[in-house]
Amino acid sequence: MIVGILGAGQLARMIALAGYPLGLKFIFLDPSKDACANGLGEHLYGNYNDPKLLEQLAQRADVVTYEFENVPADVAGFLATHTQVHPSPKALAVAQDRLIEKTFFNDIDIPTSRYAPVDSLEELQAAMPTIGWPAILKSRTQGYDGKGQSVLKSADDLPAAWQLLEGVPAIVEAFVAFNREISIIAARNIAGDVVFYPLSENLHQGGILRVATCCEHDPMQQQAESYATRLLTALDYVGVLALELFEVNGQLIANEFAPRVHNSGHWTIEGAETSQFENHLRAIVNLPLGATTAVGKSAMVNFIGGLPESDKIAGIAHAHLHLYDKTPRKGRKVAHATARTKSSEHLAEIVKQLVVLAGKVDNS
Amino acid sequence: MIVGILGAGQLARMIALAGYPLGLKFIFLDPSKDACANGLGEHLYGNYNDPKLLEQLAQRADVVTYEFENVPADVAGFLATHTQVHPSPKALAVAQDRLIEKTFFNDIDIPTSRYAPVDSLEELQAAMPTIGWPAILKSRTQGYDGKGQSVLKSADDLPAAWQLLEGVPAIVEAFVAFNREISIIAARNIAGDVVFYPLSENLHQGGILRVATCCEHDPMQQQAESYATRLLTALDYVGVLALELFEVNGQLIANEFAPRVHNSGHWTIEGAETSQFENHLRAIVNLPLGATTAVGKSAMVNFIGGLPESDKIAGIAHAHLHLYDKTPRKGRKVAHATARTKSSEHLAEIVKQLVVLAGKVDNS
Repeated sequence: MIVGILGAGQLARMIALAGYPLGLKFIFLDPSKDACANGLGEHLYGNYNDPKLLEQLAQRADVVTYEFENVPADVAGFLATHTQVHPSPKALAVAQDRLIEKTFFNDIDIPTSRYAPVDSLEELQAAMPTIGWPAILKSRTQGYDGKGQSVLKSADDLPAAWQLLEGVPAIVEAFVAFNREISIIAARNIAGDVVFYPLSENLHQGGILRVATCCEHDPMQQQAESYATRLLTALDYVGVLALELFEVNGQLIANEFAPRVHNSGHWTIEGAETSQFENHLRAIVNLPLGATTAVGKSAMVNFIGGLPESDKIAGIAHAHLHLYDKTPRKGRKVAHATARTKSSEHLAEIVKQLVVLAGKVDNS
Repeated sequence: MIVGILGAGQLARMIALAGYPLGLKFIFLDPSKDACANGLGEHLYGNYNDPKLLEQLAQRADVVTYEFENVPADVAGFLATHTQVHPSPKALAVAQDRLIEKTFFNDIDIPTSRYAPVDSLEELQAAMPTIGWPAILKSRTQGYDGKGQSVLKSADDLPAAWQLLEGVPAIVEAFVAFNREISIIAARNIAGDVVFYPLSENLHQGGILRVATCCEHDPMQQQAESYATRLLTALDYVGVLALELFEVNGQLIANEFAPRVHNSGHWTIEGAETSQFENHLRAIVNLPLGATTAVGKSAMVNFIGGLPESDKIAGIAHAHLHLYDKTPRKGRKVAHATARTKSSEHLAEIVKQLVVLAGKVDNS
């Protein structure tokens, strides 16, 4: 069976590595010649909307999936008329527009922060009394890792923040004074079976995920699963989905969801019985989903902008290196390391060492 | 860094899958066009002793390793004069001749069964009073999974058994009435650091490994480690080595060793902190070795001659499928499945289910 993937970055790379043992083969479409997944399948080199390449992909892949959510709607639509596409174009359409996404959350009773659509400076100014300070201004589409977002602290910030968006449709969101940032990774297969991983507690800096820790038996697990279930059902979703949440005084507020495998679930490679990458594949090729039980205590540390020294990581017992075959560049995720061990105390020690190593090469 | 592998079968495939996260790339030399490791690196297609291909491999690989031990001595020698080769040609030379191997074991005080070299029917007949009945006649070189071996139960068996060998140099070995067959997987890196996995208890049928179970805290662990240490040191070994042993009334007797990753260590992918495949790579590229601690309770079941039904395996929680991308053929190992879980009781249940599934498609 051949799985087509739009994108050949580190997520595609890790999906492919999880897929070989299942007997799957891969074909990637990606405009970058030195993509991370190179060597793990055939690489169709070109733009995501190149009609000839899309036709090749659709013809040759038994099922097509994505490693990023900003796939143009017509591309997803074209593929869906020619082959199986998971997750569905609808899930993509919701995820790739922050306004539609927030509205969708609210429609299915998943709470979010206050928000308002903003198409001009005047609209932004008019919205602020309702939204309150501080707030965050974001483009409705595109952008990840906090790129292109502005924090609004007072009326003085509004003109510059608006100008930065260069007129694209935007959304302003009330800032959430959260206690914790968490995410839940869920998988739903073609048969409609659903599994959830233990929550991940996520630490961001400068808008970029730095550390994600598996939280077994977390008190918020049930509420998060309930939200994720509504989302999966409403979207008739197939594949892995990551729902990012804020915890505020024991209540969860949805931030956003990613219709794909997610950085906050990378610890599942070692730290769960079945990784998010394998379960994404099982979901889309119609296999029973694998157990999501935590295996020991685990966490993941990202390396941003600078490569880890392999021998230093390998020298830490119970640390696992994951290089993405990427050239280091400012702000770029080039690798992660997972720690997996038996006790929370030992885990904390290893994570501390990994964070120091990540800090040494950090260029974010 | 580019790792060259002689052979592109399932062992090379699993080595490559373990190597991508370490940032390694692979180049395989294998005469089979549809080799298992296809798609995971560059494939030099041709015979192992093709001088042009060997030269290409030697020039382009930073280090060369093997997935099987019957590499012609001159091939290993040629490679070693052009690039790093691990394990060393010496380890290969010892492992690929059963007489040299047994003698080597005895020279470093590792006990074996009684044995004698046999180059004619007369020599075989002359050796039997010392060896005793029953015994096993094997060619000194080649052969695996019990192929080309004859069990000798009485003097009547000798002429036919000898004829079967077609005149190749042979060895006759006393049959060992063992309590258990076990193996120990060890790794030694360039710096001389050594790690051992928990023992594997191995169940063979018809000369082919069927089930291997991780035995944490086994009473024989220390004795096995002591033998393996002698072997690794005497060979100045770099890489993963598997030492197969018989347990006879609380004593261990060496059967043979494999200078490579080994079928009885496949459970380490899920069942150990670092897999044998990753530790083999760490050893030969001069990285610190990874922890070999058992992760839960685990075991592996081979699928011989017939492919498992993927959905059946995936439907067993805590079972992990490993397909080799091989066309089924009588006696051929085409896949394995690992079971990993928290309790020995649950492990036994899963293994039972896997053995039933393997039995249904068995063609050995």
